[in-house]
Amino acid sequence: MSETRMTERAAELDAADGLAKRRELFALDDGTVYLDGNSLGALPRHVRDRMADVIGRQWGELRIRSWDESGWWTAPERIGERIAPLVGAAPGQVVVGDSTSVNVFKAVVAAVRMAPEGRDEILVDATTFPTDGYIAESAARLTGHRTVVVDPADVPDAVGPRTAAALVNHVDYRTGRLHDLPGITAALHERGALAVWDLCHSAGALPVGLDEHGVDLAVGCTYKYLNGGPGSPAYLYVAERHQDRFDSPLPGWNSHADPFGMTRGYTPAEGAVRGRVGTPDILSMLALEAALDVWDGVTVEAVRAKSLALTDFFLECVEAYVPRGRVTSLTPAAHAERGSQVALACPDAPAVMESLIARGVVGDLRRPDVLRFGFTPLYVGFVDTERAARVLAEVLAAADSPAGG
Amino acid sequence: MSETRMTERAAELDAADGLAKRRELFALDDGTVYLDGNSLGALPRHVRDRMADVIGRQWGELRIRSWDESGWWTAPERIGERIAPLVGAAPGQVVVGDSTSVNVFKAVVAAVRMAPEGRDEILVDATTFPTDGYIAESAARLTGHRTVVVDPADVPDAVGPRTAAALVNHVDYRTGRLHDLPGITAALHERGALAVWDLCHSAGALPVGLDEHGVDLAVGCTYKYLNGGPGSPAYLYVAERHQDRFDSPLPGWNSHADPFGMTRGYTPAEGAVRGRVGTPDILSMLALEAALDVWDGVTVEAVRAKSLALTDFFLECVEAYVPRGRVTSLTPAAHAERGSQVALACPDAPAVMESLIARGVVGDLRRPDVLRFGFTPLYVGFVDTERAARVLAEVLAAADSPAGG
Repeated sequence: MSETRMTERAAELDAADGLAKRRELFALDDGTVYLDGNSLGALPRHVRDRMADVIGRQWGELRIRSWDESGWWTAPERIGERIAPLVGAAPGQVVVGDSTSVNVFKAVVAAVRMAPEGRDEILVDATTFPTDGYIAESAARLTGHRTVVVDPADVPDAVGPRTAAALVNHVDYRTGRLHDLPGITAALHERGALAVWDLCHSAGALPVGLDEHGVDLAVGCTYKYLNGGPGSPAYLYVAERHQDRFDSPLPGWNSHADPFGMTRGYTPAEGAVRGRVGTPDILSMLALEAALDVWDGVTVEAVRAKSLALTDFFLECVEAYVPRGRVTSLTPAAHAERGSQVALACPDAPAVMESLIARGVVGDLRRPDVLRFGFTPLYVGFVDTERAARVLAEVLAAADSPAGG
Repeated sequence: MSETRMTERAAELDAADGLAKRRELFALDDGTVYLDGNSLGALPRHVRDRMADVIGRQWGELRIRSWDESGWWTAPERIGERIAPLVGAAPGQVVVGDSTSVNVFKAVVAAVRMAPEGRDEILVDATTFPTDGYIAESAARLTGHRTVVVDPADVPDAVGPRTAAALVNHVDYRTGRLHDLPGITAALHERGALAVWDLCHSAGALPVGLDEHGVDLAVGCTYKYLNGGPGSPAYLYVAERHQDRFDSPLPGWNSHADPFGMTRGYTPAEGAVRGRVGTPDILSMLALEAALDVWDGVTVEAVRAKSLALTDFFLECVEAYVPRGRVTSLTPAAHAERGSQVALACPDAPAVMESLIARGVVGDLRRPDVLRFGFTPLYVGFVDTERAARVLAEVLAAADSPAGG
């Protein structure tokens, strides 16, 4: 199909897009096509003023009183409630704080402590973002378990009487493959093991359905599709039915039933609060809270529909513009297996991504040879998408021309 | 001594105070006497503008590029280098990130892993801020150790052939007592055990001398005397001689030798970076970095001298104004045993602190009966100090009057 036809279609798709106006909420005025929201979400404009108030008034004027009066102390669970509907969790099960890595540690240790007696194996996603694997290994070492590395698709076959729990990424950070959360969770449960899911690359991009699918524990970051800001705090989901048995390896004073009693003995709080550890990093946390306002009035189902339309359209444009075989999509064509990014293998990926960024199309690189393009439906449109594919084709053509690229 | 004489002396002391002008760097324009900097440091004024730039330009405009171009990725170790001189550490040994509780966990697990074989006990400060005790207990449980609770002064007698490490608070959060870091550290080393110090209530208020006294590991928060903001990230010190053997229980991808290699196997980075875990919370971290500017040109020795003068003067004013026996100082009179706060036991402490705060003297309460007054030499003056004691006396007199208080 011709470039002109694609451009026209892109404009039509944007015109028909019910989410198109959301883009105005974000600081994206520089003409960049920002396809790296799966690494760092763009800035919701109002966060800057909100933080000026948090810093200037809440910290600067109210000072210590803000722990009560500005709701600082309860921020971890309050913001957890804002995230809960985005991951399909009823209230009281999500708490915000610490990094994803730290939450993976809490979740994996807690999971193996809840598992039936005598089970000594933790299944770990072979394609996981690396930190999960490193942390699971540490959790295993500290709790007398061993890790078994398996592809997510093979978890149902690998789970056995020795399996305590499995730690799986919902969407593969590299390829954008969406794994079968309901099926894998059910297979684990059938054999008495627990399911711990990492939602970093799915939350905010597609429906997760934690409660619906009976997930036991989950973690995720908030700086990708949730736009919480660089290194904004992660979250932990503990299914209500497990909360009484949630036995944290990081029982900091914020998770105590009476934190200001300051007693020598540890008595865990009830509910999701039990997943807290130390004093929450309020500035990062309240920036996240403000950022979540962009979700008001938006359903994750609408976001998912647009996400699939964007990635479909991008793949279509790439096919139309780029010579066959020059790049290879690592992202599944089937919707049921696709997250919200497109990963293209490309032998000269480092140089190509550098040129793309220089031309205002910002994706990122996963070494050695993967071009990653993340599609955040709240601020990426179809015209952006067509432009990204067109610029990619130009960059590849330049690289392949006799003059070199 | 008369009130008039005390007021005059206070003004003289302020006039002679070389640090007095530092107060202008802080947002303290509301007439409050802020004696709660040992809980939440006051706002350094310039942090607000700095954060507007971090949010608006670094995140909003540069977006993902800021991980390199704005120095986000290296913030944990860069800010560690700013804190290092304040705690007496040569470069390369301090890294910032995570909460104090999480850093206590790293430090205690790493310490027992470094300790000589066959040692199964961790000595824990009986007067510790509670989170350290809870976390040490968790670390002990996960590593096959047991905790032994001892008063800091008794550590030298309690350390024995079974002691792997001791975790001690440098300054008692409740009483303000300063413990003998050099002596306790030496006693531990003499019997082959490691010293882990919690500096939350000492760093930024007095010289710590980590290198000088051969401390093995240390942690501390940055939101008290370092004014980093609510819940700003904590730090971890690992003495250079131990860094090769620092075996983190939280080996997140940020501590990997090649984090962007994203390899399945974990290879720890060299140096203090090994203490990192997940993606750093950049907003909180860069607010802390900005806040540390108030230390430019100030020595911790000068701060210590003023701190002792302030707490001496406060105790003197309290003695002059408050009827004998109405309150009892829990803070040692000896300089060598005093941190930077004064704790007064008072039977009706909750009501008294409420009245103090209503009259613009902000300290805090430690249940059931302790009034805490923290003295931050960078922004508390002698006139403030006299006023605090005077208002305290008024509040107590009102409470004791026939009309009740």
